[in-house]
Amino acid sequence: MSTATTQPITGPFLIVNPKAYLGSSDTLRLALLTDELAAQFETDVIFTAQHVDLRMVAERTSNLCVTAQHMDPIVKGRGMGHILPESLVEAGARAVVLNHAEHQLSLATLDATMERAREVGLATVVCADTDAQCRAIATMGPDIMICEPTAAIGTGTMDAGDYIERTTRIVKDVDPGILVIQAAGVTGADDIARVLAQGADGSGGTSGIVKHPDWRQVLTEMFTVIAEHKKSHS
Amino acid sequence: MSTATTQPITGPFLIVNPKAYLGSSDTLRLALLTDELAAQFETDVIFTAQHVDLRMVAERTSNLCVTAQHMDPIVKGRGMGHILPESLVEAGARAVVLNHAEHQLSLATLDATMERAREVGLATVVCADTDAQCRAIATMGPDIMICEPTAAIGTGTMDAGDYIERTTRIVKDVDPGILVIQAAGVTGADDIARVLAQGADGSGGTSGIVKHPDWRQVLTEMFTVIAEHKKSHS
Amino acid sequence: MSTATTQPITGPFLIVNPKAYLGSSDTLRLALLTDELAAQFETDVIFTAQHVDLRMVAERTSNLCVTAQHMDPIVKGRGMGHILPESLVEAGARAVVLNHAEHQLSLATLDATMERAREVGLATVVCADTDAQCRAIATMGPDIMICEPTAAIGTGTMDAGDYIERTTRIVKDVDPGILVIQAAGVTGADDIARVLAQGADGSGGTSGIVKHPDWRQVLTEMFTVIAEHKKSHS
Amino acid sequence: MSTATTQPITGPFLIVNPKAYLGSSDTLRLALLTDELAAQFETDVIFTAQHVDLRMVAERTSNLCVTAQHMDPIVKGRGMGHILPESLVEAGARAVVLNHAEHQLSLATLDATMERAREVGLATVVCADTDAQCRAIATMGPDIMICEPTAAIGTGTMDAGDYIERTTRIVKDVDPGILVIQAAGVTGADDIARVLAQGADGSGGTSGIVKHPDWRQVLTEMFTVIAEHKKSHS
Repeated sequence: MSTATTQPITGPFLIVNPKAYLGSSDTLRLALLTDELAAQFETDVIFTAQHVDLRMVAERTSNLCVTAQHMDPIVKGRGMGHILPESLVEAGARAVVLNHAEHQLSLATLDATMERAREVGLATVVCADTDAQCRAIATMGPDIMICEPTAAIGTGTMDAGDYIERTTRIVKDVDPGILVIQAAGVTGADDIARVLAQGADGSGGTSGIVKHPDWRQVLTEMFTVIAEHKKSHS
Repeated sequence: MSTATTQPITGPFLIVNPKAYLGSSDTLRLALLTDELAAQFETDVIFTAQHVDLRMVAERTSNLCVTAQHMDPIVKGRGMGHILPESLVEAGARAVVLNHAEHQLSLATLDATMERAREVGLATVVCADTDAQCRAIATMGPDIMICEPTAAIGTGTMDAGDYIERTTRIVKDVDPGILVIQAAGVTGADDIARVLAQGADGSGGTSGIVKHPDWRQVLTEMFTVIAEHKKSHS
Repeated sequence: MSTATTQPITGPFLIVNPKAYLGSSDTLRLALLTDELAAQFETDVIFTAQHVDLRMVAERTSNLCVTAQHMDPIVKGRGMGHILPESLVEAGARAVVLNHAEHQLSLATLDATMERAREVGLATVVCADTDAQCRAIATMGPDIMICEPTAAIGTGTMDAGDYIERTTRIVKDVDPGILVIQAAGVTGADDIARVLAQGADGSGGTSGIVKHPDWRQVLTEMFTVIAEHKKSHS
Repeated sequence: MSTATTQPITGPFLIVNPKAYLGSSDTLRLALLTDELAAQFETDVIFTAQHVDLRMVAERTSNLCVTAQHMDPIVKGRGMGHILPESLVEAGARAVVLNHAEHQLSLATLDATMERAREVGLATVVCADTDAQCRAIATMGPDIMICEPTAAIGTGTMDAGDYIERTTRIVKDVDPGILVIQAAGVTGADDIARVLAQGADGSGGTSGIVKHPDWRQVLTEMFTVIAEHKKSHS
């Protein structure tokens, strides 16, 4: 049997997901800045990093939920070139993103990997695109979901229709305990304010942050709207 | 254009490839021991580790060619969950294994990843199985090759026929500058002595080392036969 | 928008799934025999065939739901080497198996392929393994599901526990309109009688049929227990 | 051991590769027209079709080398949803395209599939992109190669540089017996005349044919330049 993971995050929260945009030293610089602001704003943060940088980020920060960008459903043994769940935990990661549009998994592999995450105590952050995918994955017991219309990733343009409200509701109808991230096309604090108002628990992004000329400014603005949202809902 | 990589290894050499058999602390323990013996025996070593452990191993050792077990042909940008070549270099890796039987690549992906390795200055250690695969990959300019009959991996039984001599010769006939590792089914020092005598430049293994009750003993024996081979051929 | 497919099958029904066990002429021989018995026993049959044989089977039989073993979510255009849904319909197929353990799909691809099936009017027969997978796929609106513990495929041994009753109930709890096939490890008529008694709508198999020395005998026995089950439940 | 395949084609020849652009009835219409012109111009033709249409095309034509767009390295047995080589032969196919940019194979899978092709007597038509890939695949003994810079596929624009001459020479230097197809970006008879003049054995295309408003006209022009090339070189 699997052991329950402790949900490491409370909403509203920020996700900083540099994907593969940054080398190690820039990743560390972004992590240290985010860590400082997370403490200042008393806000939870999911911070992802390349596998090779996870331990460094975990060792140098205190207020981040350090999160792997992928792992494989392997156990100790063979599996050359694959990511061993136990090693993520030893490195200090507390969560793992699975099934991102840029790293899709078969349903059987996703299932097995979520089971491995529960076994080693990593929270799962599972990505889904369409309504049908959001609903299906919500039934599988993830801790957190990223609902993201694939066509909008990296475009800097948010979904024009009711995607955010609709998919957040679909997930919560299946399991209200799942935290929902809506971040596709989010480029700044205004976008985050809007998706939180539409029911999301977390938001943030990739290119809207890493490509911004002033990381401190954009992150401060994002943390500010999250803190304001928290205050107005408490 | 790509820049030339410097071949980081001189034969005869040892490969210690723990794959996913060891957690981080055991990987570090094995690395420290191998590092000590590499200095003592003045022998080159390819030491692979899980991505999450690469920086730790590189920072704590001096005599190992720290080697990633896989990377992806991405450049800085999107590529969630994939391994960015530049970050391996920043972490201290000097080589990367590609196309292992447990992580096979399409020919186009292998080609693109070898090109990325040359761009960032990582040596390539490319795996091949049959004669046809050994010959095809040898034409692509790898620094090192692992010739390995897939059926023998992890069995503790070496190929009964002339696989080792034949595939080593196939590779050298294409490009004598490629160093050839023969390690499938190798479980101890005697096996290493034999494959070096049959023309291989390097040997070592996975289960023959990590499952051995006394790592210092098995590694010392392996380093000893390599040092003897070196002396008798110099 | 997608158009609704007409469920082409009524339970209890037989599935004859020769996978890649038979060449074209043997596939045709099995199809003709199954077609004759389907008419005699007035029982619905899902009969799968290699893509290359689908049109031949459809043209030469009258009582089979001719079913493709896979298709891709492509539209007319590029897609070299992939299976175009529209061409399956033109060839006479009425259903398609998706996500078999031997041909697993990412959740996004499965979703897109089910949507394509609805667009062209093919019924979907979607495979699932664990409870979590059965539940997740049931929410996606398949016409038929094959619940199959992967470890039991091809073993000739049925699941010893309550897998059949449990997963059938999981699917029906999500959507009672989904027909459930339970066939893993089924080798003969007795097995089929048992799974129908445990709630399945359909059963049958692969190796239990194709490897049987007397196809007419084993199929007749299978049709007989299905007909008896139908009579006792009408 | 594998048996030798008979090279089914003599250059200069035409390739008509409708990929997934056409449904079954249009595929048949294009095949019948190509068959008629192949006889009239006494020119060899590789004609590919969706798997589901192969038998129909083979039964209704006499002058085409009917060619599958992909197959899998399976033997009779399990392999749900995969393409069995033996069934392609039974359906009348004489060749198979492998490793197309839209259906890439690992080197090990390509190797195993080429071996299966030799076992069942299908000629192999293997795709490659860069110089390195062209050279590597040429060493593996394909009957025919398609050299195609992936970036140019479907663009209607031919490679501006010396790709055609260079890659053709790379292949012929490894094995002069391999027939080389150059077809990326080819849209009409003039393009075909040019690539044949630059050393290719065959040319043709996909979108340049299937999207042309008058198939008879474009095919007649293509056959004409091939026939003229043949006459001027005999």
